[in-house]
Amino acid sequence: MPPPDADIYATASGPAKAVVDAHSTEQSLKLYSGWFCPFVQRVWIVLEEKEIPYPYVEVNPYHKPESLLSLNPRGLVPTLKYENKPLYESTVICEFLEDAYPDHGVKLLPADPYLRARIRIWIDFPGQQKDKTIWDVRNVFLDTLKEFAEAMDEEGPYFLGKEPTLVDYVVAPWAVRLWVFDHFKEGGLGIPDEGKGAKDEKSWARWRTWLGAIEGRKSIQNTTSGKDHYLPIYQRYADNTAQSELAKATREGKGVP
Amino acid sequence: MPPPDADIYATASGPAKAVVDAHSTEQSLKLYSGWFCPFVQRVWIVLEEKEIPYPYVEVNPYHKPESLLSLNPRGLVPTLKYENKPLYESTVICEFLEDAYPDHGVKLLPADPYLRARIRIWIDFPGQQKDKTIWDVRNVFLDTLKEFAEAMDEEGPYFLGKEPTLVDYVVAPWAVRLWVFDHFKEGGLGIPDEGKGAKDEKSWARWRTWLGAIEGRKSIQNTTSGKDHYLPIYQRYADNTAQSELAKATREGKGVP
Repeated sequence: MPPPDADIYATASGPAKAVVDAHSTEQSLKLYSGWFCPFVQRVWIVLEEKEIPYPYVEVNPYHKPESLLSLNPRGLVPTLKYENKPLYESTVICEFLEDAYPDHGVKLLPADPYLRARIRIWIDFPGQQKDKTIWDVRNVFLDTLKEFAEAMDEEGPYFLGKEPTLVDYVVAPWAVRLWVFDHFKEGGLGIPDEGKGAKDEKSWARWRTWLGAIEGRKSIQNTTSGKDHYLPIYQRYADNTAQSELAKATREGKGVP
Repeated sequence: MPPPDADIYATASGPAKAVVDAHSTEQSLKLYSGWFCPFVQRVWIVLEEKEIPYPYVEVNPYHKPESLLSLNPRGLVPTLKYENKPLYESTVICEFLEDAYPDHGVKLLPADPYLRARIRIWIDFPGQQKDKTIWDVRNVFLDTLKEFAEAMDEEGPYFLGKEPTLVDYVVAPWAVRLWVFDHFKEGGLGIPDEGKGAKDEKSWARWRTWLGAIEGRKSIQNTTSGKDHYLPIYQRYADNTAQSELAKATREGKGVP
């Protein structure tokens, strides 16, 4: 997603700041990050869930460090440095972390091949909308959330059942930003409130169960900054007035960073 | 990709027809296919390379069989029926086949986690352009092909080296359709010919080495129909005159099937 403008909060805050501070020594693996970016948060959550040691490097999108540019000339985040080699694309990095650290912390993927495929079908639905603003895609997004809920195990609380897997972690960063719709748009995203006897109530009840479970996880709380820090960033996108080159490129569908 | 119009060749031809005919008995796994579709061909190549038994079901996009619609209400191809459950999304199905048949035929992914991630970074670059026509994206596509070639192992001939992996198979269906550019557009796609001392000659030489290797594989030859059968389909897209509902939906970016 686009970076905040230059004069807006440059680093993580709240619980996320403590996690950043705890990851400032060198390891074989390093995370180049943007605290506000949901694509970064996918990788960050997985590092936390798997308890993999990582130094965290906050990238200022207006002054990208040479150490990042020499790894990845486009300077996109998330970039993972692993044994001096670059990896990028958030879902690829998450699968890499499972492959490279199979016995470290939680398992991201079950052994059953069919269930692994079910997870991968749903893994990137928010990511596929990255060239558009969330405002452009509100109705499609709402339908897709409902389909996502309908694809879940009936009991839950997670997508596949009692334990979270990769699909829960990669969708979570969008789920914990949905309050932005309610803040900026009258009527919000339009997810019905509980107990209103609304159309598709069973699907939305399942969504709320999932959301409650995912919001309760420490890995997600600890990689999320304060709402007051996200607000000025989304305010600019909501107003469509972000003036930076990067924001303009994003609105033109060039999809950086 | 969009289906051919109703009055254009309904089934595979050439070497692909013999492969279809050899796969008409029931198995635990069944491929719902469209002979002309590059997303289908990814899965079809992998089934052939891994020597997995499969019955092949040609789907007429204007008369989708009930057996497919009951599995996948959208009726998209490729759909895989596996133990009476549906799987879709071509790259997800390919990874599923590797997970479910790890010791069957060729290995699609190396053991090394970093190399697996490198493959996954490049795995879906053609698929990401599926809501646009190939004519809209010619220049972007040309740049991406060059970057793809530059990301390869220097010796090759395949992406990672001497042996093909998943990334080679999932890009191949686009590679073997590049002649379409040359047929319909003056100047073609614009890949420089050999030995012209052109800009980026080293990258394009590497591309040609890869293309020659991939075109030589039986799995690709045996899932490719005759050029004269593809031509009327692409002719209509080139002219932008395909009149079917599905073709219209595709041009509007709804991306079926």
